[in-house]
Amino acid sequence: MTQATVTRRRGGRTARRAAHAAIPPATERPVHAGLEGGRYTPLTEGDLHAIHGAALEILETVGLADPIPSCIELCTARGARLNADGRLCFPRALVEDVIAAAARAFTLCARDPGLDVLPRGRRVHFGTAGAAVHIVDARSGRYRDSTLADLHDAARIVDVLEHLHLFQRPLVCRDIEDPFEMEINTLYACLAGTRKHVGVSFGHPRQLAAALPMLHLLAGSEAAFRARPFVSLSCCFVVPPLRFAEDACRCLEAAARAGLPVLLLAAGQAGATSPAALAGAVAQTMAEVLAGLVYLHCVVPGAPALLGPWPFVSDLRTGAMSGGSGEQALLMAACARMGRFYDIPTGVASGMTDSKICDQQAGYEIGINHALVANTGANILYEAAGMRASLLGFSFEGLVIDNDAIGAVLRTLRGLETDADSLSVEVVREVCTAGPGHYLGHPQTLDLMRRGYLYPVVGDRSSPGEWIERGSTTVLDRAIALTEDILRRHRPRYIEPEIDAEIRRRLPIRLPPAEKDRA
Amino acid sequence: MTQATVTRRRGGRTARRAAHAAIPPATERPVHAGLEGGRYTPLTEGDLHAIHGAALEILETVGLADPIPSCIELCTARGARLNADGRLCFPRALVEDVIAAAARAFTLCARDPGLDVLPRGRRVHFGTAGAAVHIVDARSGRYRDSTLADLHDAARIVDVLEHLHLFQRPLVCRDIEDPFEMEINTLYACLAGTRKHVGVSFGHPRQLAAALPMLHLLAGSEAAFRARPFVSLSCCFVVPPLRFAEDACRCLEAAARAGLPVLLLAAGQAGATSPAALAGAVAQTMAEVLAGLVYLHCVVPGAPALLGPWPFVSDLRTGAMSGGSGEQALLMAACARMGRFYDIPTGVASGMTDSKICDQQAGYEIGINHALVANTGANILYEAAGMRASLLGFSFEGLVIDNDAIGAVLRTLRGLETDADSLSVEVVREVCTAGPGHYLGHPQTLDLMRRGYLYPVVGDRSSPGEWIERGSTTVLDRAIALTEDILRRHRPRYIEPEIDAEIRRRLPIRLPPAEKDRA
Repeated sequence: MTQATVTRRRGGRTARRAAHAAIPPATERPVHAGLEGGRYTPLTEGDLHAIHGAALEILETVGLADPIPSCIELCTARGARLNADGRLCFPRALVEDVIAAAARAFTLCARDPGLDVLPRGRRVHFGTAGAAVHIVDARSGRYRDSTLADLHDAARIVDVLEHLHLFQRPLVCRDIEDPFEMEINTLYACLAGTRKHVGVSFGHPRQLAAALPMLHLLAGSEAAFRARPFVSLSCCFVVPPLRFAEDACRCLEAAARAGLPVLLLAAGQAGATSPAALAGAVAQTMAEVLAGLVYLHCVVPGAPALLGPWPFVSDLRTGAMSGGSGEQALLMAACARMGRFYDIPTGVASGMTDSKICDQQAGYEIGINHALVANTGANILYEAAGMRASLLGFSFEGLVIDNDAIGAVLRTLRGLETDADSLSVEVVREVCTAGPGHYLGHPQTLDLMRRGYLYPVVGDRSSPGEWIERGSTTVLDRAIALTEDILRRHRPRYIEPEIDAEIRRRLPIRLPPAEKDRA
Repeated sequence: MTQATVTRRRGGRTARRAAHAAIPPATERPVHAGLEGGRYTPLTEGDLHAIHGAALEILETVGLADPIPSCIELCTARGARLNADGRLCFPRALVEDVIAAAARAFTLCARDPGLDVLPRGRRVHFGTAGAAVHIVDARSGRYRDSTLADLHDAARIVDVLEHLHLFQRPLVCRDIEDPFEMEINTLYACLAGTRKHVGVSFGHPRQLAAALPMLHLLAGSEAAFRARPFVSLSCCFVVPPLRFAEDACRCLEAAARAGLPVLLLAAGQAGATSPAALAGAVAQTMAEVLAGLVYLHCVVPGAPALLGPWPFVSDLRTGAMSGGSGEQALLMAACARMGRFYDIPTGVASGMTDSKICDQQAGYEIGINHALVANTGANILYEAAGMRASLLGFSFEGLVIDNDAIGAVLRTLRGLETDADSLSVEVVREVCTAGPGHYLGHPQTLDLMRRGYLYPVVGDRSSPGEWIERGSTTVLDRAIALTEDILRRHRPRYIEPEIDAEIRRRLPIRLPPAEKDRA
């Protein structure tokens, strides 16, 4: 969704012409995927080492409960130790060896290679994610069960939003009861709706195994998929505190062997399933994701993996999860910083407002969290758009509004240039001593209008008078209109008919074929 | 407004008891005024020196137009030079001498000394400010002219909001045409409504002179006011680019001699009255505020002053001011960082959304700006609450909602503690190997519930089910209710009757005496 699209929606022919004249080529856009963070540092060097030390001590002396037999076998062969309580403990040297050997330069491929995501260093990207069980009705605020069609709609919307760089499944298709059918259809709906990188979860390796032929068909061959895996596995291999999740561990092994990048998720809740002390929550969570990294490395050495330390916050008055607080921003920023400390690609969660709708609370919670987590240099901010009600609800309009917030945050990542031209001493001299006494129309101003300043899509900057004349709309009103417009117009066909037919022969696909899709 | 106030509003007796049990004493609150920023660094060391160098070059070789005779006389006596074009130029050595000698440890006093603001180092505070000409009707979105009664209401609301640390006049009393009466009544309305530090502007030194007796009466004597000046002058002494404002300069001189701290404001607009290049806008603005500092120092050496570099953004498509963008956050953060580079107290502007109302756009624009500007270590974030429509509108409900956003940002300033207790290795060990396998009810959790976690006042964290049961309210709905409640209940009488009578004998005060105030 470029600026032009919206300007077009708002004005007449003159506005259209002006907008067209002003659209710079993609390479000259004010922001882009992979801008570098790192200017916000939630932890000192001493903090980093203290948390690293605590994580290593937890791994070595507390360990993780409930390892499955294959996990025990693979990890003890490399030096892990099963203690008398049946907990799998990881000696410091083993963990440090794996950190040193971990994959650092893989790509989260997109079916459109121009949309590839390179999560490394301080490069920052934003994506959806989540397991919302409700759709928020934008006008009434009503909550209803989320469906397969909703997931496909979300994929289509994300496909056109400039500042969302990947599409991880953000909601659960509750209209499909059978887990196998649900997960197969989830993957299909994502791939049908967007050519950006797709992330999914599988509850059981059976589903993953059944899905692989779909991926190989789309890629052209298994080898082609392994060369450019355009789907990653989001894997909750651990139930905090420090307990392996049996089926998810099986999926982790299967995904690593199938060549899917794995997001190693540890999603404790400070004060409930991880310590209430923020540093303790970070230490336990880092221990958990490092255990996952060791495990994965024992399955396939150097397998591509993102650390996924996602410590959430409990509202300690109720024990319920809370996703939008300042404490939440600190937790995720600290985890992102730990990931950079290890120089291992890391994705955290940011943008999970506690508001049930698209109101000002949603805005400031998302804004504060994204601003700090992105500027830490998190490689991927998941759950970054559309999530409401502390992850229980999903809002299509939220996607669109949050995309504007993310654009503004990306602009802060770019920062200020301070070369001589930007410092502008000669421009100031010229304007003040020989020029008109203002900078409107100055060549520097005209140039930067195109490549220095980012304009919001549904954010409004008009004067009160103009705004009233246009109907006194909220950003939600405008997002509703744009969302409807996208869903009406953007009906991509990202699965070729022959391949689609072949997939449908093998798997119980429920979305109607593209041509008939909501015609 | 503490958490208790709201819990009381929501629940029955049980809720009240629970809330009372949970309120920690003020010293153990999770956040407080003066928490230190500095973890976000928008500029490198090289950037700081480059911008400093550009500012010095502008001051020395371009200078400022339209100095008044007293300014020329005072400044040239110290080494400034009037060039052939009548521009006052400041040699590098003079500027550096004044920077070295500037006041660094003054207090923005409050009439309640417990509310004093100490703007120094990396200490961060939030306050209102602005010159809004409209009040936003929360329910209809209608804009109407702002009045004296509105200003008094705003002061009363800010008086109870925990995270707003000072009250600078945020709006213009448009029901008073005469400038003299307007400014006298503006000052009176602020002081009647809050005992926090008050900031005002004066358009002419005549008004300032007339106001001084009011301040001396309230303080007890002129000497007492000079010892603890509880009002500061917000002074737009410069019309960017680089042109002195005659009457404001006279006010600057008068305020310095009367002992009022001065906020040296330079409020250019990048792309219109300062360069479109962000670094250039910062360089020109820093040059302007440093010129003000030199000037003030020539009037009263070492007079207390805050640098007020406020470079705004132009939407370059229209030339209109825009206050909520990522570019805006960068500009203010960079200026705040320059202030720290000089180690001179600095107040910038943050929180000036382009939205006309309290919607999600307002939220994310305010959230992103506050998160980054505060974490830079700006000593004061002005315009921090209630401002809408790029400063044209003021919203009472916005004050209340923005206060929650600011609380969350303050929590991020506090950061993570990483002492051994916080790292929690023994807590993890105990819970996982001998305990219940969760942290609910653990002594560490209970302790941190009281002093580690901040709870929003009008922000909602309930589940979708509870939220629907309570009426599916937006944060604006809840803010409307709380605002009405505050205005009904909080009717402070901060001007003693005898002093009030004396002030009214001398000045045309329009607000009715306290007892009859909206009875």
